[in-house]
Amino acid sequence: MSHPHFELTLPPALADGALRVVALGGLGEVGRNMAVLEFAGRLLVIDCGVLFPEDHQPGVDLILPDFEYIRERLDDIEAIVLTHGHEDHIGAVPYLLRLRQDIPLVGSQLTLAFVEAKLKEHRIAPVTLAVREGQTERFGVFECEFVAVNHSIPDALAVAVRTPAGTVLHTGDFKMDQLPLDGRITDLRAFARLGEQGVDLFMVDSTNAEVPGFVAQERGIGPVLDGVFADSTKRIIVASFASHVHRVQQVLDAAHAHGRKVALVGRSMVRNMAIASDLGYLKIPQDVLVDLKQVDQLPDDEIVLMCTGSQGEPMAALSRIANNDHKVSVGPGDTVILASSLIPGNENAVFRVINGLTRLGARVVHSGNAKVHVSGHASAGELLYCYNILKPRNVMPVHGEVRHLVANAALAVQTGVPADRVVLAEDGVVVDLVDGKASIVGAVPCGYVYVDGSSVGGITEAELKDRRILGDEGFISIFAVVSSADGKVLAGPQIHARGFAEQDHVFEDILPELTRALEEAALTGATDTHQLQQVMRRVVGRWVSNRLRRRPMIIPVVVEA
Amino acid sequence: MSHPHFELTLPPALADGALRVVALGGLGEVGRNMAVLEFAGRLLVIDCGVLFPEDHQPGVDLILPDFEYIRERLDDIEAIVLTHGHEDHIGAVPYLLRLRQDIPLVGSQLTLAFVEAKLKEHRIAPVTLAVREGQTERFGVFECEFVAVNHSIPDALAVAVRTPAGTVLHTGDFKMDQLPLDGRITDLRAFARLGEQGVDLFMVDSTNAEVPGFVAQERGIGPVLDGVFADSTKRIIVASFASHVHRVQQVLDAAHAHGRKVALVGRSMVRNMAIASDLGYLKIPQDVLVDLKQVDQLPDDEIVLMCTGSQGEPMAALSRIANNDHKVSVGPGDTVILASSLIPGNENAVFRVINGLTRLGARVVHSGNAKVHVSGHASAGELLYCYNILKPRNVMPVHGEVRHLVANAALAVQTGVPADRVVLAEDGVVVDLVDGKASIVGAVPCGYVYVDGSSVGGITEAELKDRRILGDEGFISIFAVVSSADGKVLAGPQIHARGFAEQDHVFEDILPELTRALEEAALTGATDTHQLQQVMRRVVGRWVSNRLRRRPMIIPVVVEA
Repeated sequence: MSHPHFELTLPPALADGALRVVALGGLGEVGRNMAVLEFAGRLLVIDCGVLFPEDHQPGVDLILPDFEYIRERLDDIEAIVLTHGHEDHIGAVPYLLRLRQDIPLVGSQLTLAFVEAKLKEHRIAPVTLAVREGQTERFGVFECEFVAVNHSIPDALAVAVRTPAGTVLHTGDFKMDQLPLDGRITDLRAFARLGEQGVDLFMVDSTNAEVPGFVAQERGIGPVLDGVFADSTKRIIVASFASHVHRVQQVLDAAHAHGRKVALVGRSMVRNMAIASDLGYLKIPQDVLVDLKQVDQLPDDEIVLMCTGSQGEPMAALSRIANNDHKVSVGPGDTVILASSLIPGNENAVFRVINGLTRLGARVVHSGNAKVHVSGHASAGELLYCYNILKPRNVMPVHGEVRHLVANAALAVQTGVPADRVVLAEDGVVVDLVDGKASIVGAVPCGYVYVDGSSVGGITEAELKDRRILGDEGFISIFAVVSSADGKVLAGPQIHARGFAEQDHVFEDILPELTRALEEAALTGATDTHQLQQVMRRVVGRWVSNRLRRRPMIIPVVVEA
Repeated sequence: MSHPHFELTLPPALADGALRVVALGGLGEVGRNMAVLEFAGRLLVIDCGVLFPEDHQPGVDLILPDFEYIRERLDDIEAIVLTHGHEDHIGAVPYLLRLRQDIPLVGSQLTLAFVEAKLKEHRIAPVTLAVREGQTERFGVFECEFVAVNHSIPDALAVAVRTPAGTVLHTGDFKMDQLPLDGRITDLRAFARLGEQGVDLFMVDSTNAEVPGFVAQERGIGPVLDGVFADSTKRIIVASFASHVHRVQQVLDAAHAHGRKVALVGRSMVRNMAIASDLGYLKIPQDVLVDLKQVDQLPDDEIVLMCTGSQGEPMAALSRIANNDHKVSVGPGDTVILASSLIPGNENAVFRVINGLTRLGARVVHSGNAKVHVSGHASAGELLYCYNILKPRNVMPVHGEVRHLVANAALAVQTGVPADRVVLAEDGVVVDLVDGKASIVGAVPCGYVYVDGSSVGGITEAELKDRRILGDEGFISIFAVVSSADGKVLAGPQIHARGFAEQDHVFEDILPELTRALEEAALTGATDTHQLQQVMRRVVGRWVSNRLRRRPMIIPVVVEA
């Protein structure tokens, strides 16, 4: 099953009657999920999300799917189906709509409300179609049936796409909590019916495929919160994801039961919960919500602050509270609950927050010491159920790093899917479903597209490498003005350095040698500024390496006057 | 128990007959462990380790304890007791010996062998005294009894320090594996005897105090390795810590049992295992070791490569193998075992390695999917045993972040140590033991000391902030030559930028405005170069912020000619 895609070439033209699937993100990373289905020259997009950068991508704001593959074919897109309202599934929609604003957005009521709020910030008014589970809609050649799935945000949908080439079932993100708070379970009856009718290609969430067993119930968190609330005699601060409506619901309910008021803290928390409440997904107990401004008038044991920042984001409320740099302060006896997962890569930041809060005297409850979080993604046990109920003819694991996709593929094979019908693809890999068999036929270029300030796609790996060098090693700039007549140094050389252990004055040692080297070079005929710049770079570079054991970026500038 | 130390002042002079304890590292972080005991004007140092930097400390090589407190008192130091040979306990010894080379180093045979190999690289020949468990030595006013403890490196020691002010027991790093590979258990009989005699201050490893229960046995890893070896038909690559002699022992034994040869890969792995084998701590089965060069002559199913890089260090063997950038290559059917913990902060790097290996077709076995690692630090269950056996009069949790220290303190209180006898100190906090009671009496300055290239302590938080800005935002340098006569721009302005989405030519837009602004400034009398530089910074800064939405570092240079 394991196919390194190092040497794939561009795919052949799509055969008549065949279906093509290309993921432009989400296969090889957790985020920027986007799949493009093609039949008879027409396209259907499923999800269009963002990926958040890691520390080797410094300064980057967001990472988008690579739209290059569809840039010339925007008019062929029938619709964008959005499976749910998380950023890694909807966050890149504004960037795609900038290219063609009237692509119809299809999704559940809550999903569309979240994406519309986001588009409003980008001043885009989209064309939308709200759908519900059980509903079937046709978008050109694609007939889409929407199926309820359970996830860590309400109103998530899977989508079955019927074409003459066969039926694709795409799960979106899902798990199979059998007693969810809203009673809306993953519709295994629909999965069973689709399986009976025949699923030709099953595109299935891999995020937790490495995790054995089953995800615990969201409902189980309520009693844990209840216990923590009962033990708390002063203020309670809860941090979680700003879209986790059910988690917030349980906090509101626990607060209500313990006679506390809740203030929402953080712009996204306030906005999302207003939407969820307006649409009836969040049920706010009478009089439980108060404004943050009112909190100071309440006694400590009647306060709950529900905030963002559970991943240690430095500018979010919780980090600033932990640093004693927020209007909300924390002190001995207060309780802080991180009702969230610890997303890999965020450990140091989250532990810094926990240490800061502990140092201020707070008790910190988190998923490492209490059952205050459950995942939103099906574990191996749940995935096995799906495979057995669906008996798909072909499987294509989606949503995950390579290790997750490979683990999910192994589960499919264990349930009897033939190994040659399990397609391990990465971003940009082209999968054709021909005569009922899915296989890899090539790959299209599919890179990381960085949003960086106002630039989209302007920054490349080369600039990121420059940033890593600048961040690790600092830089030295050298200026000199030389006479175009005789090569004499008229002004400078001046050396400016930043990000160094040593101050600029240490470079005074090198200035005489540098002047000498420049004038010698001029004497030997090296009069063009480029050559003189190389001389400066070489002299300073060698000195810094020998003396300081560093390899900074060196920018030499010679001006002729 | 929870004492924020924000407002502590310098301590009073140490009272006659009292003992002072100051940690110069290790209290508030996992690493750079170092404690200084003082009695009657004399000092005893326990451990002197390094801390590895996090990603908000870019380019930093190592972080040392802050020696400032003892810099003027080096001649008062009787000895440095080294509890074991891990970098976070011995790594800073060369930097301390640079200040006074003849401070006696006291430790077990293996510990001294590791520290001597390190000192040799620094060209320092130390004064050493090898000690064994059960042995008692006097260093001036300090009588030290050494006690065997079990840890993830052989030959670790705790030390009981007797002074007229009372007895301090310092555990070093330890756990309580009851069936360790070498049969050398943490000596609870000695702990019991010391407890009977009276332990006035118990300084105890906090690393795993948050973890409930007991650490599993190292011995349990053997059968797991055995099972993985039995399932492997091609090459096996094992990565672990280069000092984990017992882990390597188990790999050698498994290889021997399965008819495979082992090649050690990585300089530190080769060096440390040579030392351990010479001293008899590592028992190499006959003919099992081969040189890496010989591996190519062996069939795949007779090969084991034992290498470094289990934390995803980019330059270590395993990362380079995963990137297909090492003479050792990995392919479908090979097995890679990460027999190590996942140190917080390294997740992304380790998962990149796992994904790379998976993509190449290898099966990757790691602590997330098999029992191939156990911790070296006592969990809460073990710590409770210690408290109950020792019944210490005062407790000072050491080795850990604030959250670990607080968790350890809570365990002490649960066993009956009065809360006011549990001292929660951070680095630099001064703890005096007076009349049998330990309490905080002040604090001395104790910062992070960064090793950065050849600079020790030269780099400050300000330079690190510069590096973070450079790494996130890049920089722009602007250069102009102006006439000292009339303020006309004679050459330039030139703009050079690095780490940007946009190439230098985008700045051409701003050059005319910049020239205009400079000449206008000159006309209005701003002739000094500093003022003109501010004009350039302002014009370019505003333009970059408006046009590119970035805030790079801007370095303007004006030269008069």
